[in-house]
Amino acid sequence: MKLNCDLGESFGLWQKGDDRAIMPHIDLANIACGFHASDPLTMLKTVRLARKHQVSIGAHPGYPDLLGFGRRSMLYPDDELIAIIHYQIGALQAICQSENTRVSYVKPHGALYNDMMNNPAVFTCVCRAIAQIAPELPLMIQALPDPAPYQQIAGEYGLSLWFEAFADRHYQDNGLLVSRSESHAVIENSEQVVERCRHLKQHGKLLSANDKVLTLQVDTLCVHGDNPAAVDLVRRLSKILA
Amino acid sequence: MKLNCDLGESFGLWQKGDDRAIMPHIDLANIACGFHASDPLTMLKTVRLARKHQVSIGAHPGYPDLLGFGRRSMLYPDDELIAIIHYQIGALQAICQSENTRVSYVKPHGALYNDMMNNPAVFTCVCRAIAQIAPELPLMIQALPDPAPYQQIAGEYGLSLWFEAFADRHYQDNGLLVSRSESHAVIENSEQVVERCRHLKQHGKLLSANDKVLTLQVDTLCVHGDNPAAVDLVRRLSKILA
Amino acid sequence: MKLNCDLGESFGLWQKGDDRAIMPHIDLANIACGFHASDPLTMLKTVRLARKHQVSIGAHPGYPDLLGFGRRSMLYPDDELIAIIHYQIGALQAICQSENTRVSYVKPHGALYNDMMNNPAVFTCVCRAIAQIAPELPLMIQALPDPAPYQQIAGEYGLSLWFEAFADRHYQDNGLLVSRSESHAVIENSEQVVERCRHLKQHGKLLSANDKVLTLQVDTLCVHGDNPAAVDLVRRLSKILA
Amino acid sequence: MKLNCDLGESFGLWQKGDDRAIMPHIDLANIACGFHASDPLTMLKTVRLARKHQVSIGAHPGYPDLLGFGRRSMLYPDDELIAIIHYQIGALQAICQSENTRVSYVKPHGALYNDMMNNPAVFTCVCRAIAQIAPELPLMIQALPDPAPYQQIAGEYGLSLWFEAFADRHYQDNGLLVSRSESHAVIENSEQVVERCRHLKQHGKLLSANDKVLTLQVDTLCVHGDNPAAVDLVRRLSKILA
Repeated sequence: MKLNCDLGESFGLWQKGDDRAIMPHIDLANIACGFHASDPLTMLKTVRLARKHQVSIGAHPGYPDLLGFGRRSMLYPDDELIAIIHYQIGALQAICQSENTRVSYVKPHGALYNDMMNNPAVFTCVCRAIAQIAPELPLMIQALPDPAPYQQIAGEYGLSLWFEAFADRHYQDNGLLVSRSESHAVIENSEQVVERCRHLKQHGKLLSANDKVLTLQVDTLCVHGDNPAAVDLVRRLSKILA
Repeated sequence: MKLNCDLGESFGLWQKGDDRAIMPHIDLANIACGFHASDPLTMLKTVRLARKHQVSIGAHPGYPDLLGFGRRSMLYPDDELIAIIHYQIGALQAICQSENTRVSYVKPHGALYNDMMNNPAVFTCVCRAIAQIAPELPLMIQALPDPAPYQQIAGEYGLSLWFEAFADRHYQDNGLLVSRSESHAVIENSEQVVERCRHLKQHGKLLSANDKVLTLQVDTLCVHGDNPAAVDLVRRLSKILA
Repeated sequence: MKLNCDLGESFGLWQKGDDRAIMPHIDLANIACGFHASDPLTMLKTVRLARKHQVSIGAHPGYPDLLGFGRRSMLYPDDELIAIIHYQIGALQAICQSENTRVSYVKPHGALYNDMMNNPAVFTCVCRAIAQIAPELPLMIQALPDPAPYQQIAGEYGLSLWFEAFADRHYQDNGLLVSRSESHAVIENSEQVVERCRHLKQHGKLLSANDKVLTLQVDTLCVHGDNPAAVDLVRRLSKILA
Repeated sequence: MKLNCDLGESFGLWQKGDDRAIMPHIDLANIACGFHASDPLTMLKTVRLARKHQVSIGAHPGYPDLLGFGRRSMLYPDDELIAIIHYQIGALQAICQSENTRVSYVKPHGALYNDMMNNPAVFTCVCRAIAQIAPELPLMIQALPDPAPYQQIAGEYGLSLWFEAFADRHYQDNGLLVSRSESHAVIENSEQVVERCRHLKQHGKLLSANDKVLTLQVDTLCVHGDNPAAVDLVRRLSKILA
């Protein structure tokens, strides 16, 4: 079970996250592509940092909404949504190529990720977009008790899926996350996060907020690196999963 | 001698140029990549149109300045300028790939083109940028009486150059264009443009505004398609060069 | 009954609409404020043109989405939505002041207009935004058979409302427009548009697409100026309403 | 002698500076207006914070270049530059008005500030812009040994000038700042900064990097609040100047 983290989310002079602290401890770096965050130079620096630490690079495309950080759903016709995804993946591929490395997977960002999980039409667009230009790249989505509907659509496009879980988030009984608008969405206690991670690794199971046992196929754990405590936690999770 | 034209310069709802009218008559389409003009969907439509008319596709990267249409010089550190070029070429490559076609050359846009012609440091950055990700792509620059300095730098990066002339622009005696700020910069008389084009094709020579003979190695003629008269002229030039 | 039209919708080099042709024939110019269209220089030119033709100037604020021309709904917290409206109105006020004229009313654009009509919370934000900085400015909204709910909210903020009808659009029986996604949304026949306008002026009534009689209090008619035929129509409507 | 500081330089999710820590200790807040930094909600929050601490609000307009933070010179025709300044001042005025406060002065940002100091044509545009919409607002510029040329132009437009010095920057013998590209541009030693400030207050003089005595008329000192040490320094300077 690998650790993945959203990185390269600075924009121009504005810094976000502590990429240098977190990169040594993760396996997969989801790199923003300039639409919800980042810019060409930030992408270049992030790619260099990932390469230095032998971290796999994922394209992390989002909606074109810097001000809203790609967290607002935006409606696009299929053709335009697919072109938006191609554009961002291609941009990152070129920057990777300039550093003699490459994009290894795709994980949509923010509202695009949510729309993909909730709307089969959007999920299909994401699959088509990847299949048309890089069918060898796995698509990372959320691990759910029943991933079959996603696997079927991805299969039609010849795509592999990677499933991710969230160590620091509470789950509903149906396997979806408790919304961030709820007070108990995030697990603040790092001991509890570590324990959940250990349990998930050994047994492939997570407890929902109501203590229902959720059996999940999990390839990777999503972690955050926004503050020193977060970096400490990632370091601990990294050792557990090693 | 081929005809090249800047195309795909619309942005969202705003249309610019009549791409459908001009595309059938040209050989090389310089397609904007979203920084000075265009957006992912416009790029997709323009790539489809080029492919339909078997027109070669060139990446046409510019400075990130939609409001100024990339016509204002902007200062960038080398690393950032190169990343900006990679980003745009990669974005267009991915969209081309989704339509089973590819980018065949690179021609910088507007102020980036001018800076490249006037500043060897910028020209070197452009060459490095292309060499790092697609050294097989020729770089289109302005034909000059003495192209040797450009050929030397391009040669160091293993790049080919394509030289373009401007049929509808007056030239200075040194082979540079008369600036658009001068009243006689543009040749309005289409008969004169046709005649210059014919002469250039047969003899490889253009007369400067002062009637000095300029001997130019020209691979391609740059034309415009902004209005019906322009489209008519392109149709005539296309026949002469056929 | 006055004619109002969306104007000043160019952006940088990209032209949209023929403002010079339409301005002499209208009474109220809804001027874009740089978020969904326009830029400071375009705003200045449009204000100058309105002033020259003694056309009243309305602030036409929209969502910050140039690529989507403000036609996509975007979710904002109340505070942010109000600040976005203040920002745009203030920007236009300053440009008006520099030309010794002023903003005389407010009409939201595109998706913000639709959200305002469909969502009382958004309508309340728009009212609050205007009341906080310019309570003397009327707010233009769509004329409906029952405007009472809007009048009540506006009244709480001490605002006047101006009601507009659409001469070239078909109406549903409930007084809402037939959606643009329907084939019969727009009335293409200009004779029919002129006739509807004449009837509305004399009798204060419009027929719905199902021939139901709609009684509407209408202060102003919204017209378009995108093409030569549209300009001709506006000229005719202008004479009828004179 | 008052303390002024650039504030409200966050953008969307990206935070910059610690406005809450610095605001209580300054007199004049130069508030970014959305072109080089900030957005409507950030402007609103910053205005509220300034009002809470009874700090005067200055409009801090810049070039429209978020990615470059307004630090790159950009060429504009006079009309457009003036419209850009009007737009930003007006936007901030409206947000101030919504909070029952007002803009009290103008200080251009970054490259626009530098261009204004170095190029009389740009300085004239800035003066014209202010005079056209708010001639009662003083314009803050850099204190120089000979301010007469600036005073003459400002006087023609009926504008007052406020002169600022930089406590933590080394000066050239001609009264200009040592460029940031030089290693000794910034004075890192806070004791030295405090001492210079004390001396300036008592004697109206600063020593250049070569120990030449510079006599400057200084209304306000520019300080920075980017880090905890900076905030400490501002607190100390605030006491000296009280």
